[in-house]
Amino acid sequence: MAEFRPGSADQDEFLVELTKAGLLVESGIPGVYGRGTDFERVRLGFDSLVAAAAVGDDAERLSFSPLLPRRQIEELGYLNSFPHLAGTIFAFDGDEAQAAEQATVASAGGDWSGFQSMSDLCLTPAVCYPVYPAIAARGKLPAGGVTIDTGGSYAFRHEPSGDPARLQMFHMHELVRIAEPETVVEWRDGWRDRALELLRGVGLDANFDVANDPFFGRTGRMLARSQRSQELKFEILCDITEPEPTAIASFNYHQDHFSGTYGLEMEDPDTPAHTACLGFGLERITLALLRTHGLDPSGWPEDVRDKLSLG
Amino acid sequence: MAEFRPGSADQDEFLVELTKAGLLVESGIPGVYGRGTDFERVRLGFDSLVAAAAVGDDAERLSFSPLLPRRQIEELGYLNSFPHLAGTIFAFDGDEAQAAEQATVASAGGDWSGFQSMSDLCLTPAVCYPVYPAIAARGKLPAGGVTIDTGGSYAFRHEPSGDPARLQMFHMHELVRIAEPETVVEWRDGWRDRALELLRGVGLDANFDVANDPFFGRTGRMLARSQRSQELKFEILCDITEPEPTAIASFNYHQDHFSGTYGLEMEDPDTPAHTACLGFGLERITLALLRTHGLDPSGWPEDVRDKLSLG
Repeated sequence: MAEFRPGSADQDEFLVELTKAGLLVESGIPGVYGRGTDFERVRLGFDSLVAAAAVGDDAERLSFSPLLPRRQIEELGYLNSFPHLAGTIFAFDGDEAQAAEQATVASAGGDWSGFQSMSDLCLTPAVCYPVYPAIAARGKLPAGGVTIDTGGSYAFRHEPSGDPARLQMFHMHELVRIAEPETVVEWRDGWRDRALELLRGVGLDANFDVANDPFFGRTGRMLARSQRSQELKFEILCDITEPEPTAIASFNYHQDHFSGTYGLEMEDPDTPAHTACLGFGLERITLALLRTHGLDPSGWPEDVRDKLSLG
Repeated sequence: MAEFRPGSADQDEFLVELTKAGLLVESGIPGVYGRGTDFERVRLGFDSLVAAAAVGDDAERLSFSPLLPRRQIEELGYLNSFPHLAGTIFAFDGDEAQAAEQATVASAGGDWSGFQSMSDLCLTPAVCYPVYPAIAARGKLPAGGVTIDTGGSYAFRHEPSGDPARLQMFHMHELVRIAEPETVVEWRDGWRDRALELLRGVGLDANFDVANDPFFGRTGRMLARSQRSQELKFEILCDITEPEPTAIASFNYHQDHFSGTYGLEMEDPDTPAHTACLGFGLERITLALLRTHGLDPSGWPEDVRDKLSLG
């Protein structure tokens, strides 16, 4: 199994504070927590703030469950880039005798993996993945393309960690832009400023940087360098815990990667369709707010409480 | 893999209407759909209605992701009762050479299940499952116990079907009561009427019935009979498609099942802690509303639109 990455002293301490305050609830598995009343109010408050900001983009809401057809991660090359982060769903397909044997082995704490077989589903590693084939199925895109608002939706990454900001399943509120290359780049650059404004507007010391994805292995280091040099990924960072800032929002410009895989095309045959997405990490933003303003939202600055509808 | 259960003619037709209207979006996998703007507005509107109704119960919000520690379904006997519905999460734990081989096999459409091993996580089959150990960890319960509102949270059931009301992952908004036996029964009986009122209040022809869970195999038929004769499970049913009504809410009285497994105790040593839960199936209720009032919510009766905050 994926190696557990221990938290720093500061991260361990923050997690203890969060659970003591009932903001998070331990499940016994690192990176898997329940979320208490105040945590949820803040998370949903920021979620609504993003949705309201997206209204100006004439964004269309399109939401998906955390289940992704397995063939999508096979087609997309995800297993080349992030094999260590993927989660696949297995299920039982036997008869009554096998079911009884499976249950006996499982309740005795034995290894019952042999009774499970791979289903046609995996967990969504990125909230925007199901959007591309759904839009491609509609046919060619008119000039100006589309903007999709996924709402706050779950993504899975198999990376157990002691850092409370590194969850195995978390909400990303994503906006996805599919259009002409220059339209997509302009949208991304505009949102870089709007996202910073949104995050600074609730009192976060948020800053922008060029970034790369956590590609796997030696080949991955090359991919990461190329992604950086082309400035295809931006992040907005905020100090939550020592020793380093945490990415609380990220922007990915995929150029024609998804268009090529799913056949996304503009009506104008001379213009390729490009894609970009912007994701707000809702649990991380909630943690950044708790660290910045304190663990009790009732004492937060009035303007922050107003913006987050904490009434 | 689990056998695909084809939809009835009416179910197939309804699914086509829903996708044509952009309310649902096909993913290529039965029971896995995207949800469009209007679908989400109705779903979230009803979700808020439940949360508002639960305020009177002084309910505490406690929400979980769809990830459940695998040991919970091992401990709970879930694999005895519902082995066919469970989903377990597998992941990759190899080196670079194995990762490359896995990616090659996967992109060629081959069987790459051998590269995946069982993780310590499964998918939550019922939204209330993580609540019990979380409350038990707090210690003994004072008189009157607690009421938990999970919000609209995802549950997984591996049962691919052509019926648009039978999703593989769906939102249940659950209320969980943990208290003295008579308090729990009184709460359940009170909510039976309140839930009917809530659902009829938005125009649904909702009716109450005694029910049983879909237990697996021959032993399962005995369990189902016993559950019915003890009236441990109620459902609220509504006609969505032919040939039969669909359960849109359900009530389960677990007596001391979860208390025994997780050590839930009342402070009073002479009184056992019992548990019950009530779940509203948000996608099913949305579908019932769409079938009852029509596929375009802008034309729905004014009072229904008001209650669902469709503004």
